[in-house]
Amino acid sequence: MPFKGEAIDWVALDWIAVDWGTSRLRCWAMSASDTVLASASSARGMGTLLPGDFEPALLECVGDWLTPDSIVPVLCCGMVGARGGWLEAPYREVPCAPAPGTEAVLVESVGTGLAVHILPGLSQVTPPDVMRGEETSVAGLMACGVDSGLVCLPGSHSKWVRLLDGQLTQFSSSLTGEAFSALSQHTVLRLTIASDESEPDAVFAESVKEAVAQPENTLCAVFGLRPSALLDGLNPVAARSRLSGLMIGLELAGVRDYWRGADYVHVIGEPALVARYVAALDVVGTRALGHDPSQLTLLGLAAARQALRSGTCGN
Amino acid sequence: MPFKGEAIDWVALDWIAVDWGTSRLRCWAMSASDTVLASASSARGMGTLLPGDFEPALLECVGDWLTPDSIVPVLCCGMVGARGGWLEAPYREVPCAPAPGTEAVLVESVGTGLAVHILPGLSQVTPPDVMRGEETSVAGLMACGVDSGLVCLPGSHSKWVRLLDGQLTQFSSSLTGEAFSALSQHTVLRLTIASDESEPDAVFAESVKEAVAQPENTLCAVFGLRPSALLDGLNPVAARSRLSGLMIGLELAGVRDYWRGADYVHVIGEPALVARYVAALDVVGTRALGHDPSQLTLLGLAAARQALRSGTCGN
Repeated sequence: MPFKGEAIDWVALDWIAVDWGTSRLRCWAMSASDTVLASASSARGMGTLLPGDFEPALLECVGDWLTPDSIVPVLCCGMVGARGGWLEAPYREVPCAPAPGTEAVLVESVGTGLAVHILPGLSQVTPPDVMRGEETSVAGLMACGVDSGLVCLPGSHSKWVRLLDGQLTQFSSSLTGEAFSALSQHTVLRLTIASDESEPDAVFAESVKEAVAQPENTLCAVFGLRPSALLDGLNPVAARSRLSGLMIGLELAGVRDYWRGADYVHVIGEPALVARYVAALDVVGTRALGHDPSQLTLLGLAAARQALRSGTCGN
Repeated sequence: MPFKGEAIDWVALDWIAVDWGTSRLRCWAMSASDTVLASASSARGMGTLLPGDFEPALLECVGDWLTPDSIVPVLCCGMVGARGGWLEAPYREVPCAPAPGTEAVLVESVGTGLAVHILPGLSQVTPPDVMRGEETSVAGLMACGVDSGLVCLPGSHSKWVRLLDGQLTQFSSSLTGEAFSALSQHTVLRLTIASDESEPDAVFAESVKEAVAQPENTLCAVFGLRPSALLDGLNPVAARSRLSGLMIGLELAGVRDYWRGADYVHVIGEPALVARYVAALDVVGTRALGHDPSQLTLLGLAAARQALRSGTCGN
């Protein structure tokens, strides 16, 4: 069941902010001064929907906020704009400002009191790479005054991002989170690895260090969890820490040009994952600062809404 | 349905050779001079069976070869001797001769006309590693006169093996095959990768070269298949070749100490996989010689049977 916010003062409602990812839909009722009046969410992420399902899924969350006589602008970011989403919002090529409201694509009027815009994703020519959703939280970070620096967005497809003078100049994605899940659930390692998350511990730190130093050993080291369990009694919690450390260490080895010599890295992610990346970066001697992704995404959407309001596509 | 061989001259039947892996059971009726009188197989691999299922599964294949009054020796190798198999046959520690018949473990008499022995697996202390089944095909290679050299056994858990003066001295396992399957089927790459095998092509060779040179880039390069498909139209067959090349290249980077400077490598595996490894080794300038695994396993079982017959555990 979706979580619906309380009834709101509809006079104050100015627009609706939407973060619509692969697995989740999050909506906020916003005032003209970008105060959050209410929020709502559901599990109807882009990955579960066909094109005709998006409008009903959105109305299920935000319908109670609407009045019969007004058209409320809605600004969405994330996989909702991917091929196979509600409407494909073309990629913008880096270097560029992330999440520019003036480039949002208007979904054809649907007669439901909503004027839905979808923000574009970002693309990079060399090496080929794409991003859809994360750039809005980076825009939120920039709205807080960070206009140059390094950002890490850990997850299924971890992103490393370079910012320079208000532009997102370069980025790199790694399959870290999905590789961890696929290896731990769909190989012989499933017999050896605990299913519950744990804190980053000494085994994690050692494994990060090992993978950064010897990334070429990954397939041997990963298989090695099984004989270590059979011969040396490696326990499932330690095995999980080790696989996590090996994968994150391999990611760090691949994006060494990003973090080497950096003063510090902004890490945007869920707290447990941020803790893991902060610990991993500590192993390689780089300081890191964690940030809440929902808060930054909302700030990024608000910045894009301001641009959209004052720009050519505004309502 | 199992494949059953024709009725055989039971007077000639001396013993039964069995290769019992995770996914398949293969049986050969053997004469005293190790001629194959008949063969049979089924899909009742160790991975599909509970301890009580092994005896009926074996009888389903070989029952027609038995006569009421005699006890036929059966010699098995493979995962049948793993924890969770029919009976755990303890690991022997390297360096040692692979697949020594005198170390086979006798399954308690089951009153069915069979005297079943299971060969031990191999273990290594540093780094921790295990092997169960592949060592018998290596013993077969040694029975052909190879008593020193390098052997590669590609597969779900690829093995690299060093032989010296008739001993298996060292080995290393990589999760290559399972990592390929898990990444291609259980991550976003499933949208991008063809399901059918193809020949090793130029994309494969380039990807091997890239991964051997820059193994640290694996998680970026692997994710990169998705944006390459979205932005540059990378086709699913080429994407599959590239993932395969990246994984095999990463394996080669990890076992560089094995193949570097070697005259050539013996590759034991199914023809399509052998072709892939021969092509990959060619990229790094190492010659390779392919061998059929069933034939070598049978030779290894025959050598073990001779030792068992003349040794302390013989029938």
